[in-house]
Amino acid sequence: MLYFVGLGIEQSPSLKALKILKGCDHVFYESYTSPSIHPGVLHELREQLGDSKVQNVNRIFVEDGKKILEVSKGSNSALVCSGDPLIATTHQELRTRAIKEGIETKIIHGSSIVSSVIGEFGLHSYCFGKSVTMTREPMQHTAYYAIFRNLLSGLHTIILLEWDESQHFFLAPKAAAESLVLAENDIKYLAIGSETLLLVASRLGTDNPSLKVTSVGKVDSEDLGDPPHVLIIPGRLHFTEKEALAAISGKDTESMADNSANIERVSRRMVETYTRKTLTALERAKKVSANSKQKVRFDEIFENVECYTDDAKRFLNEGREELAVLSIGYAEGLLDSLRFGRLLEFEW
Amino acid sequence: MLYFVGLGIEQSPSLKALKILKGCDHVFYESYTSPSIHPGVLHELREQLGDSKVQNVNRIFVEDGKKILEVSKGSNSALVCSGDPLIATTHQELRTRAIKEGIETKIIHGSSIVSSVIGEFGLHSYCFGKSVTMTREPMQHTAYYAIFRNLLSGLHTIILLEWDESQHFFLAPKAAAESLVLAENDIKYLAIGSETLLLVASRLGTDNPSLKVTSVGKVDSEDLGDPPHVLIIPGRLHFTEKEALAAISGKDTESMADNSANIERVSRRMVETYTRKTLTALERAKKVSANSKQKVRFDEIFENVECYTDDAKRFLNEGREELAVLSIGYAEGLLDSLRFGRLLEFEW
Repeated sequence: MLYFVGLGIEQSPSLKALKILKGCDHVFYESYTSPSIHPGVLHELREQLGDSKVQNVNRIFVEDGKKILEVSKGSNSALVCSGDPLIATTHQELRTRAIKEGIETKIIHGSSIVSSVIGEFGLHSYCFGKSVTMTREPMQHTAYYAIFRNLLSGLHTIILLEWDESQHFFLAPKAAAESLVLAENDIKYLAIGSETLLLVASRLGTDNPSLKVTSVGKVDSEDLGDPPHVLIIPGRLHFTEKEALAAISGKDTESMADNSANIERVSRRMVETYTRKTLTALERAKKVSANSKQKVRFDEIFENVECYTDDAKRFLNEGREELAVLSIGYAEGLLDSLRFGRLLEFEW
Repeated sequence: MLYFVGLGIEQSPSLKALKILKGCDHVFYESYTSPSIHPGVLHELREQLGDSKVQNVNRIFVEDGKKILEVSKGSNSALVCSGDPLIATTHQELRTRAIKEGIETKIIHGSSIVSSVIGEFGLHSYCFGKSVTMTREPMQHTAYYAIFRNLLSGLHTIILLEWDESQHFFLAPKAAAESLVLAENDIKYLAIGSETLLLVASRLGTDNPSLKVTSVGKVDSEDLGDPPHVLIIPGRLHFTEKEALAAISGKDTESMADNSANIERVSRRMVETYTRKTLTALERAKKVSANSKQKVRFDEIFENVECYTDDAKRFLNEGREELAVLSIGYAEGLLDSLRFGRLLEFEW
């Protein structure tokens, strides 16, 4: 049996986890997938379980995995880490190998930074889109596009920051913010600017965590303290979310930018513009048609123009944007045909 | 001081949580935000902390919150629950009120079902889009649209199922699947069908969890056992994710549907269908127009129909889908105006 045991972001085993670890013959503790925010954790584990049982293992040992799988065949063993034990892909791969080799596996979950940071800021977990990880590369289109798409849908984005244990490197929030501004200057979707609301959580799980409600342009001047940090770019905020951010930061909610406000779907803008234009042209066409001597059923065309313009608005409100665009295009075409066919002369 | 303490999905306090709870004068335990999968949890807490200290409280007590806030002003108290303590919005609201009233708050996080289920299936957390909750309403457009949008981007969707403590009601996976099929029949985006790959996790955190890799059409015939259940509709699977699902289920990865493969942007399908229809109708209109005695510049209309049909294709290839849909709608309208105006009679 191979247990995967998470100590959560507070790096403290649950009673259930301890009971299981006490029944294990081998306990492997690794600290390279999550930063060790609590230096005494290995010592504490050894105090609880006995010095000889807990082995501190490194990345190569876990990625190789042979020793762990070998001892798990004949006895109970456990791989222990901070956070949730199956968020790291190397652990997932080890588990897949174990199952394939006929070794039973069981998971004792731990709190993960991803779900913890959501609650810390009082945000709703169903208001989050895809999360991203940012690295020290200067310009990161992938992260930018993901944030843009989330903002389009009004969703929040969690930004995890690169951490390299071997180099003791943590990507700074300031560097991540600068990288997003560089991407903005290149892609120009107007998704990120210096006013963009930015949340920074630091040292979650320790005894001195901090939560800052700031902006992309001001993050540099905040006193964030030591890493690890994790960022959130919020989309559209629910009023209870705003209240939570106001309570946490002491800032008033009015001063907080709505990052999604200026980002509308292209289709929405299109439908609104073309509806206005079509209805104006329709009025002009109606006036001119009164004096026309052509044998054309103008009334039927005009009715259809109105009908499809209404449809476009309805589809838009239902979130069926493609149908909305199709309808307004069709309405415009119906009307314009009269001009191309020299049946009516009117201006758009 | 008011602590919010999560017991994780295994409903077992960490050593750190226990130490804090021992130092509290009042411990409020609530079991209405998460199903109590482990009936002895209250008993265990009382054993650890003393009978008189732990009060079992209900929804009304927590939502009202006055008593909790009152005792937290003069002493240390804690609100304890399963999972993560800040995923429930009522807890978040209580925390916001506490901060506003000058009460210090601190969070001891617990593992949440949302992060746990991702790891259980060996999926990558950054491959998930917005999560949804499904209720017992028969047809749920909101959930359907969210899943559709995630699938379009290749992302996985977590589906939480309604749970009502007071009625001891758990929404069945089968009912959720049926509801999505109903929505599909109504909206027809071709996002969900009986072949759609569906993952069902049951009783996570207990001693007899189960993980099923099934499909929307087959979920009814799976032996899922007792609730609680949580569902995932995967999008595009990474090969390590496929390997994990294969290892968990004993099924081979080839038999697993790629839920994102058949989903094209609605706009793409729309443009292709309408282009075909418009060009066929154009040919018919041209034939009929040769014999028409109407004084209409048919040639100019026809040229424009062709021109905008070409534009639609070009915009589609450039990824400018909204413009493509607008163009094909316009081309169709130009042509159809001739029928509405009784200038030409031809079939679509």
